[in-house]
Amino acid sequence: MKYETCFKDSLAFIEKKLQKALRARERSPAIIHKAMQYAAFTGGKRFRPVLTLAACEACGGKPQDAIAGALAIEMIHTYSLVHDDLPALDNDDMRRGHPTCHRKFGEANAILAGDALLTLAFELLTEAQPEEKAIRLVREVALAAGVHGMIGGQVADLAGESRKKSLKEHLYISRCKTGQLIRVSALAGALSAGASPRQVRAITHYGECLGLAFQVVDDLLDKDGFCDVMSPRAAAGKAARLIGQAKAVAKSFGPRAAKLNYLADFLMSRIP
Amino acid sequence: MKYETCFKDSLAFIEKKLQKALRARERSPAIIHKAMQYAAFTGGKRFRPVLTLAACEACGGKPQDAIAGALAIEMIHTYSLVHDDLPALDNDDMRRGHPTCHRKFGEANAILAGDALLTLAFELLTEAQPEEKAIRLVREVALAAGVHGMIGGQVADLAGESRKKSLKEHLYISRCKTGQLIRVSALAGALSAGASPRQVRAITHYGECLGLAFQVVDDLLDKDGFCDVMSPRAAAGKAARLIGQAKAVAKSFGPRAAKLNYLADFLMSRIP
Repeated sequence: MKYETCFKDSLAFIEKKLQKALRARERSPAIIHKAMQYAAFTGGKRFRPVLTLAACEACGGKPQDAIAGALAIEMIHTYSLVHDDLPALDNDDMRRGHPTCHRKFGEANAILAGDALLTLAFELLTEAQPEEKAIRLVREVALAAGVHGMIGGQVADLAGESRKKSLKEHLYISRCKTGQLIRVSALAGALSAGASPRQVRAITHYGECLGLAFQVVDDLLDKDGFCDVMSPRAAAGKAARLIGQAKAVAKSFGPRAAKLNYLADFLMSRIP
Repeated sequence: MKYETCFKDSLAFIEKKLQKALRARERSPAIIHKAMQYAAFTGGKRFRPVLTLAACEACGGKPQDAIAGALAIEMIHTYSLVHDDLPALDNDDMRRGHPTCHRKFGEANAILAGDALLTLAFELLTEAQPEEKAIRLVREVALAAGVHGMIGGQVADLAGESRKKSLKEHLYISRCKTGQLIRVSALAGALSAGASPRQVRAITHYGECLGLAFQVVDDLLDKDGFCDVMSPRAAAGKAARLIGQAKAVAKSFGPRAAKLNYLADFLMSRIP
């Protein structure tokens, strides 16, 4: 089954709620909303929010329970792409076949749109219910997105750009830059469903395996990163083992985890 | 009495806690911590966190009750300066007599250090107790810092840079860009003290008056902004009236609001 078919309902729900969260609001300048919407609605598989909803379902929750976390994480992912594409960072003119946000709206508006998406993510998380759940989400998302997580990985990646990195460095960068946000996507779903500590641990393990595998598969497709320190065959084997571990977790949750299992299969199918 | 003398205890408490919050943590790259610390400890009057502690005291709370909010808001103020100074925005090489963050650490690290400070601000707010207070703080701070607040004002300011702005535009920009963060600094103090709704409204009014006055005084000192649409005498009168309103609120809180009153006096003394 195709990704879009399998997650049709989740994707429709995410698009509807994301549009609502990013609608232009009275009194703020139109340009910032346009830049935020442009960045958020230009392609993208919505892998992270789909994962959040899937993890919530696996723990017995409903999509509505997890949507605040799902949208917040997608906004943080979006902001990170907008800032990564800037001339001072990756200097990319195109993303997903369209001009990058700063090429379309100028650098200043792209920087501010990224800042606004990050800020809005935390505003959204406060809508989660009850309050102790909301505050746990804010904390986990901030930790995953900050200097110990996504930003830390990005900084380490930039710092090592001009030289050959070791396998250990690639693992650190991938676990932080890509892995932490995917881990917290799964975790946010479990927390939103009111999962038990044992379920939360299992879902976290699923997210960690999937997150690292995601980066290994990306590097295989782009022929960089892990491919600089491993043969393609070894990298493919590593990705397959990690995805196998994720599938074992999904299996332990029974039929409610069908979507978690499918997300793992989807990633497996991308291994070249 | 000098500002530094009057707020000696608050300033010492803020520095100690800010240093602790920004200490380098294991496993993250050193450069990002250095850039964050450099931005946070290069001069600065700590007007916003001092205001948060003063508003908390006026409502019967202790410094410890309000420190999470105070530090979070100072971090957001700091990140906004780091991003504002970037070449794509104000393109400033110097701030407070030192090279700006991007001149010292490069543009990429300055962008990421700003992102990290914003993210860390929300992580810190989750330490406020109890949880319903923490979530209210996250919400209010996100709203004040986002597209309806600080970022919205910054975008409007940039959009109108090349032409003469009306008084109405100056008011909108100042209320958003400067005013909202000062308003929420006061509000965070009141909320942290567990203030009554009536006290929260009064403190919010104090913060709004002080926030707008702050920008008018800044424009008077820099001979720009409001001075483009008002005579210096009219702008000074406007600032003095706003500060007078803030002082009236402080008076209504009695002797516990001595510091709120002093902050208003301090601003009044800066009117040239």
